[in-house]
Amino acid sequence: MTQHNHQTAPTQFVEANGIRFAYRRFGNAAGVPLVFNQHFTGTMDHWDPAVTDGFAKDREVILFNNAGVSSSSGEVPTRIEKMGANAAAFVKSLGLTKVDVFGFSIGGFVAQEIALQAPDLVRRLVLVGTGPRGGERMATLTPEAQEIFGASYDEPDHLWLRVHFTKSEKSQAAGREFLKRFRRRAENRDPEVNEKVAPAQIEAIGEWGAPREKSFEYLKSIRQPTLVVNGGKDVVIYPVNSFILQQQLPNAQLILYPDANHGSQYQYPKRFVQDVSMFLSGEEAR
Amino acid sequence: MTQHNHQTAPTQFVEANGIRFAYRRFGNAAGVPLVFNQHFTGTMDHWDPAVTDGFAKDREVILFNNAGVSSSSGEVPTRIEKMGANAAAFVKSLGLTKVDVFGFSIGGFVAQEIALQAPDLVRRLVLVGTGPRGGERMATLTPEAQEIFGASYDEPDHLWLRVHFTKSEKSQAAGREFLKRFRRRAENRDPEVNEKVAPAQIEAIGEWGAPREKSFEYLKSIRQPTLVVNGGKDVVIYPVNSFILQQQLPNAQLILYPDANHGSQYQYPKRFVQDVSMFLSGEEAR
Repeated sequence: MTQHNHQTAPTQFVEANGIRFAYRRFGNAAGVPLVFNQHFTGTMDHWDPAVTDGFAKDREVILFNNAGVSSSSGEVPTRIEKMGANAAAFVKSLGLTKVDVFGFSIGGFVAQEIALQAPDLVRRLVLVGTGPRGGERMATLTPEAQEIFGASYDEPDHLWLRVHFTKSEKSQAAGREFLKRFRRRAENRDPEVNEKVAPAQIEAIGEWGAPREKSFEYLKSIRQPTLVVNGGKDVVIYPVNSFILQQQLPNAQLILYPDANHGSQYQYPKRFVQDVSMFLSGEEAR
Repeated sequence: MTQHNHQTAPTQFVEANGIRFAYRRFGNAAGVPLVFNQHFTGTMDHWDPAVTDGFAKDREVILFNNAGVSSSSGEVPTRIEKMGANAAAFVKSLGLTKVDVFGFSIGGFVAQEIALQAPDLVRRLVLVGTGPRGGERMATLTPEAQEIFGASYDEPDHLWLRVHFTKSEKSQAAGREFLKRFRRRAENRDPEVNEKVAPAQIEAIGEWGAPREKSFEYLKSIRQPTLVVNGGKDVVIYPVNSFILQQQLPNAQLILYPDANHGSQYQYPKRFVQDVSMFLSGEEAR
């Protein structure tokens, strides 16, 4: 059997919680699989092959669309908790009993919910460009994010040059490389999300992001070793939220990369895969 | 010629600024040397051989005592600026024109001053367990540090189990391993510092740590790539100061390790050497 990669992995389907989940699964089947939870309005095609194929050398990579997103059926819930429950049901429907969970941005909120609701299912957590429930400036889009998502772009993909990269020449150059990689899968791409996805996700983000009493208390019960990563200049979810996650989680490491915005893992894919792989293989404990 | 290591490197002397500086130099002479700036009341013997010898495989390691400390002559200045000037003079007196600078705790303040005063001398900076001028709770010892430094210990070395490690079983076990390593050099150890060192260093720390208007403005002129590292539970210099350094320096990466106090590099020496080596070799830019 030929081993699939980001470009060639077929979209498969599995039923759970009354939803038909679209997913792709590829890479080295040895070890614990890594399940990817995507950002706002993103599909499986919004991951960077330099990251997914980078991990796939040493472990199995599982991409999926959560309920209501693109090729998955159902509705996008307006609560992160429900997204977490759906994600956990999806993982279990594959017959898996232990996975590593990767979450980016809103996907990082979902990843935390998976760990809270199904602690035995999760071995290690990787939280990228994300924050805690009730973090700083998380109940609404930041002023910078409002500007970025509100602007119009000659090419729609150029939105991501602003979301994921800083204005520096180096970062923008890295961004253009990222866009090439992310368009490289030519066949069987995911359909764009429908118009109901963004409003539902924004409602869920608003509820999750709203400050409340003892906002961060829940983090004490996420006991999995966790790696928190962000760009030091993330204007979508401020880096202080990564710092809060590290400080409040019982067993977390933090990495903030220089001159990087929301998508630091796409600016430094090689370094990122190396840092995260070291963490996932437990070498950080030495 | 046999290559020296942390145990065997002879203490040598060089004159600069009217001071006779004690230093040790060992490791792979290829590449840019790494100059170590020590913590409060520490001597060359307070470095961890797992760290120094770890770096020495790939680069030259230079340990020294700054003015007035242990085997170096002169007086400890009561200003960090003057310590920085002395350190820069020491490096130049070795005929070196470009070095990487490592600073731990008060040594991290000195490292920043070296970069400010002799920018052409410094290629990259590694700032560990330290903070910016006027950082949070830096003008006096933190309440935790007062308790730790004020307590008495059955064995004097056990002070470092409290300063550098958390109270967790794992961290304390790592601390006991560290103490063994740090006592391993049997011959030609440095004399303990005299009674004038601590008061002078405390005065310098107090001046440096005092908040002022636009405390962090000076960081904008430290343009060297910088790696900031700390334990996520440092009670001597709070980790928020590492976050501030990363946020304010133009080109900095941050790593906070889990369950680690002031001496995170002694708790995870292997991982630390790996992370810093990756940074020093420029691989972080990819």
